[in-house]
Amino acid sequence: MRHETAENDPLDEVVTWRDGHVVALDQTVLPHEIRVLHITSVDDLVDAITRLAIRGAPALGVAGALGVALAVRQAQRQGWDESRLAAEVERVADARPTAVNLRREVRAAAAVIRRGPAAGEAAAVAVRDATIGVSRRISDRGARYLSEAAGTGPLTIHTHCNTGTLACLGWGSALGVIRALHEQGDLRQVIVDETRPLLQGARLTCWELGQLGIEHFLICDGAGPFLISQGLADAVVVGADRIAANGDVANKIGTYALALAARQAGIPFVVAAPESTIDDATASGKQIPIERRPDDEVTRVLGVAAAPEGTRALNYAFDVTPAELVTAIVTEDRLIHPGREPDTTALVS
Amino acid sequence: MRHETAENDPLDEVVTWRDGHVVALDQTVLPHEIRVLHITSVDDLVDAITRLAIRGAPALGVAGALGVALAVRQAQRQGWDESRLAAEVERVADARPTAVNLRREVRAAAAVIRRGPAAGEAAAVAVRDATIGVSRRISDRGARYLSEAAGTGPLTIHTHCNTGTLACLGWGSALGVIRALHEQGDLRQVIVDETRPLLQGARLTCWELGQLGIEHFLICDGAGPFLISQGLADAVVVGADRIAANGDVANKIGTYALALAARQAGIPFVVAAPESTIDDATASGKQIPIERRPDDEVTRVLGVAAAPEGTRALNYAFDVTPAELVTAIVTEDRLIHPGREPDTTALVS
Repeated sequence: MRHETAENDPLDEVVTWRDGHVVALDQTVLPHEIRVLHITSVDDLVDAITRLAIRGAPALGVAGALGVALAVRQAQRQGWDESRLAAEVERVADARPTAVNLRREVRAAAAVIRRGPAAGEAAAVAVRDATIGVSRRISDRGARYLSEAAGTGPLTIHTHCNTGTLACLGWGSALGVIRALHEQGDLRQVIVDETRPLLQGARLTCWELGQLGIEHFLICDGAGPFLISQGLADAVVVGADRIAANGDVANKIGTYALALAARQAGIPFVVAAPESTIDDATASGKQIPIERRPDDEVTRVLGVAAAPEGTRALNYAFDVTPAELVTAIVTEDRLIHPGREPDTTALVS
Repeated sequence: MRHETAENDPLDEVVTWRDGHVVALDQTVLPHEIRVLHITSVDDLVDAITRLAIRGAPALGVAGALGVALAVRQAQRQGWDESRLAAEVERVADARPTAVNLRREVRAAAAVIRRGPAAGEAAAVAVRDATIGVSRRISDRGARYLSEAAGTGPLTIHTHCNTGTLACLGWGSALGVIRALHEQGDLRQVIVDETRPLLQGARLTCWELGQLGIEHFLICDGAGPFLISQGLADAVVVGADRIAANGDVANKIGTYALALAARQAGIPFVVAAPESTIDDATASGKQIPIERRPDDEVTRVLGVAAAPEGTRALNYAFDVTPAELVTAIVTEDRLIHPGREPDTTALVS
């Protein structure tokens, strides 16, 4: 794997296919460095996914599809047999457990490669193009909904983690909704949770909002629920890593606290996510596997030790917000109100 | 002001009076460095309080009392008149706005110095000794209460910020309760919020618990409410910076989210604090001034930039938890249940 400084618009390089390999923006070094990765092996792709150089449920779906094309190229180069290829494809699917998109797009792409490598690559690129279109439809539907649901006048939207182009390609999911509100003149400002441990809000969301010229304020995660209680935000809008069939939502750790606070304050708690994030095979949030990541993401911050040497941590990367706390789920196709039907499997059609 | 590496037990040096000046442990460099400050002027004391070298409501009370003695010494040395002395004493009282203890102990000490400098110094040292005794009584009462209120068997206690010896002298308030539970064999482990922005949980509480040999796990603040929802903790125990007459509690930002989560999970949310933290002159939390601190405490972490250059932040240092979410307040003298009497001024006798 080689890497270079970006020459193109870095937001076009989030995760894409070029010259027979995967090109990706290394999100671990943003916003202070723009570094483009050229990924030519399954090993390097799994590493990029594991260390969150590529992240965000929809972007992981694209990485999964492109990863299958990459594995086929590597199989040809290195003479892998079918079982080795299958095993390597499985490693891509298993690189992270919580977002359903990764595994789903790996499966879909793996089915296509039986028709040949060229068909596989074309299908993977089509997944990327479709993902961009989907995020735009989520953005527009979400902005229309919020204009009605969260009151008149320019809105203050509270968001968590990063759900923009870097996570979803195109405009994004929750951040796409915010961008669409901005475009239609209905946005006052954005409250951005820093999103410890890896600070995707501080590093990535503030950077994207800065690029777009959207007014925003950064806060520590612990401050969010209190600021909501004081009436600062008109709505909370977040993305999702997996949505269970009953409407329970797995998203970046820290989301549940915002949902509790939003209900207490009487403001909408809205999840913006593609249909591909909804996992009909998972009945409720209890069945969603929650990734536990290394302790040192908590005990150290940006490479600097915070806690005493040897301190142990509990580092769950996601939490589950029960359907009853979710005002609405906005997808590219529909608007769902899981909180209104808490005892039904509302999302299974 | 000079500083040196500690030779004595650093926990005896949190804030004390020695050889006619204030000695304090610089809490901004813990746990990686033990640095003792020798503070000989009001300027340096105000600086130490403002940048949180000395912190925690009870320790700030002690610093306030010792600060008056320090101002009298400086007045003698530099020939200040009475109005100059009064103005310098006022600067100590104003160094931080939220904890009521600082202003209260400055006022009490200022009244005593009319009887002469020696009386003033003796009174200030007596405040320190009393603070140590008070924290031990809170600790024991809190542990007895929790053994009854939070179920049988060793308990897992979730706490926020730092409320041990470093904040309170003696055993501490919330952390003193945890220490007393440990001593009586009723503690399983402690869940420690890292407490952004200044990471007092990660830096100070983990260090104190390590010194005491108490098992603990560090978490990011955003993870707390979710882990509570999953049944990890048997109770939440926190300190307070000011308690209003109606039982509303101002404490380090991030506390409110834990209180909401504790109510949702049906576990006790307990505030451990000295009587001096209760401010009968403040009717409710709405009247408590909430300190807004510099943006760069949020945009930078441990000296490293997290957000893009120029990012603005909202950095409120405290939040207010309404009385209705507080299961019990434990002081050195009594046990109060403000949540049971939300419409009365429960704490005013």
